[in-house]
Amino acid sequence: MKYAPKEEIEARITKLKTLMEKASLDGAFFHYKIDYYYLSGTMQDSLLFVPLDSDPVLFVKREISRARRESPLRNIMSYRSIKDIPQHLKPMRRLGMQLDVIPYNDAIRFKDLFSDVEFVDCSPLTKELRKQKSPFEIGLMEKAAEIGRKVYAKVPEFLREGATEIEVGGQMEAYAKSLGHEGLLRVRSLNYEAYTWHILSGRTGTIVSQSDSPMGGLGLSPAFPVGASFKRIRRNEPILVDFGICYHGYQVDQTRMYAVGSMPDMFVRGYDACREIHDRVLDKVVEGYTSKELFEYSKELGDKLGYGDYYLGYKPHKVRFLGHGIGIELAELPYIAATHTYPIEDGAVFAIEPKMVFPKKGCCGYENTIHYTNGKCRIITDTDDSIIIA
Amino acid sequence: MKYAPKEEIEARITKLKTLMEKASLDGAFFHYKIDYYYLSGTMQDSLLFVPLDSDPVLFVKREISRARRESPLRNIMSYRSIKDIPQHLKPMRRLGMQLDVIPYNDAIRFKDLFSDVEFVDCSPLTKELRKQKSPFEIGLMEKAAEIGRKVYAKVPEFLREGATEIEVGGQMEAYAKSLGHEGLLRVRSLNYEAYTWHILSGRTGTIVSQSDSPMGGLGLSPAFPVGASFKRIRRNEPILVDFGICYHGYQVDQTRMYAVGSMPDMFVRGYDACREIHDRVLDKVVEGYTSKELFEYSKELGDKLGYGDYYLGYKPHKVRFLGHGIGIELAELPYIAATHTYPIEDGAVFAIEPKMVFPKKGCCGYENTIHYTNGKCRIITDTDDSIIIA
Repeated sequence: MKYAPKEEIEARITKLKTLMEKASLDGAFFHYKIDYYYLSGTMQDSLLFVPLDSDPVLFVKREISRARRESPLRNIMSYRSIKDIPQHLKPMRRLGMQLDVIPYNDAIRFKDLFSDVEFVDCSPLTKELRKQKSPFEIGLMEKAAEIGRKVYAKVPEFLREGATEIEVGGQMEAYAKSLGHEGLLRVRSLNYEAYTWHILSGRTGTIVSQSDSPMGGLGLSPAFPVGASFKRIRRNEPILVDFGICYHGYQVDQTRMYAVGSMPDMFVRGYDACREIHDRVLDKVVEGYTSKELFEYSKELGDKLGYGDYYLGYKPHKVRFLGHGIGIELAELPYIAATHTYPIEDGAVFAIEPKMVFPKKGCCGYENTIHYTNGKCRIITDTDDSIIIA
Repeated sequence: MKYAPKEEIEARITKLKTLMEKASLDGAFFHYKIDYYYLSGTMQDSLLFVPLDSDPVLFVKREISRARRESPLRNIMSYRSIKDIPQHLKPMRRLGMQLDVIPYNDAIRFKDLFSDVEFVDCSPLTKELRKQKSPFEIGLMEKAAEIGRKVYAKVPEFLREGATEIEVGGQMEAYAKSLGHEGLLRVRSLNYEAYTWHILSGRTGTIVSQSDSPMGGLGLSPAFPVGASFKRIRRNEPILVDFGICYHGYQVDQTRMYAVGSMPDMFVRGYDACREIHDRVLDKVVEGYTSKELFEYSKELGDKLGYGDYYLGYKPHKVRFLGHGIGIELAELPYIAATHTYPIEDGAVFAIEPKMVFPKKGCCGYENTIHYTNGKCRIITDTDDSIIIA
């Protein structure tokens, strides 16, 4: 097990404090484990408080000895109830709380413990910080990608005519876990869950679901209506494998295409177009295009290559994003989407996923996780990207 | 795929309206997919509104044709933004919203669309309803249990000296998924995640983690610090397998004990004691003991049988619950715990899990999912409960 080094956590806290000062915060609470993991190194049941002018305090409910082993923070103390928290703090005026995720009742209950304090949402601060990945984080994502390479290399063994999509997904997952994949892809959302097993074959690749994705798949039931299903793999149909890997909480995302027997020509050409769009968009990242410009440029390319009706889904189910930042959450800053207007900054890690859906026939797509730094886009998920025939 | 029948959904809505009337609600919004699945039959990206005096309206963002197929509700309409919602409703005075789960910012944004409306938490209403399982729901849980029986029967094939815990868990999961297990166990919590692969062997069975459980396991990293780990299975050590199954969103929970070679005598006796406590507690459910009384009674039994120091964990990590209701969430009403004072009502489905942890040595435990109806406790998860030697 790798623990976050002291210098890593200290650097994050220092940067956070700079943003807190700009936001005129005397301190900030982090109730959500994604962010207190980022700022402390532990996901034990805790509540992190970062005061602007002194050292962070990690309040731990369970289990403190593990929290002390995992986190390099110095002030780690146990607590039983949130009612115990205010007595440990000096009076303050304006504090942050993660109002984008903390449930309403919990936020109210917590606010009520403090008199004369203004609470503001501090999640934008950690979202901003987490945009830029450190070498330590990149190392964990490289390791996730290494697991991914091994898992994707096994797909031809798992794919066979007559196997169900979920059988293939389950076998990929079991193998990935044996190598350190942690199984869950975490998403900052009340209702959205990401499943690792997105295996879509032929017609299921045209099915749309609740997810904001060009294709959703059939899934297993109305309660899990996304991803792999009981549909059996047939010969000569396109099989899209979009399988995320998570290592020490850090995720990478990638998509490759497979077929049993042979790949129909229209999907060979479609996949080529997806790869071309992918490559040319990365050139434009380097040229400094904004998120919105990258998205629009990719759409123009889709049109030019003759895929306007199919690119990023078919009407009325087209999606308005091409990619998403990725890290300890599956979707984080920067987004590459119609409504985001910033350029991609140095240190960003994002996935881009040009995909096409041909109604009643199937889908194809290509996706990688990219590290943009020193003016270059480097593909972290550098798995073989030819069409693999099983 | 099984869809909830019209009569099932109608009965749930009718019961909900009775509770809404008691709570003086003119209507109630359900943003959280667990509850709108329960009340509508679909988990497509939606928002359910139930007015007291007319038919429910399901507002669907994506994907409406699937929502219409999955849900027997009559009024299903698409929407793009929550701003569109109020125009479809007549003026009302007091409305429910799921304030226990909806993020603070989202709740405020939604409230602000309505003037002169008092919003109150309506989650207690669905929690109350969901306590009593219908024959349709029991059918889905039986099916989950059937998958569980097959998966547990395979465990001896997966267990071998030198295999890692996570390898075993991954193989169980892959096989379970091929039979229809949906992989995620859903929990109503910002931070708590339940993993299906709780495979603890020897010393890892004594490790406590952030979860409110007598034992947590080592897990894979600080970001996934619970459950199966890279520890290798050894001969002659106790192996606890606590593996939840989910079918159409409905979960069952169970725990059994295994060993490779032989089971050390202290764990054979400990496991016998767990089964005895389990059986005797079920007798008391039938006799009408309250939740708290059941918990206290089980502790007395633990003491009498000589396991006071180990029962439900060791100091200071003992837990104060013996069981939990289960259904479309892993933990729901009724809880069997020190702080809950109600009796178990007809129609309840709950898991009870007497477990013991012997510091530095290992753990043992026994767990079933139980349906209490017509004055009887029936074990849904009726998998072989002898100690299995692989």
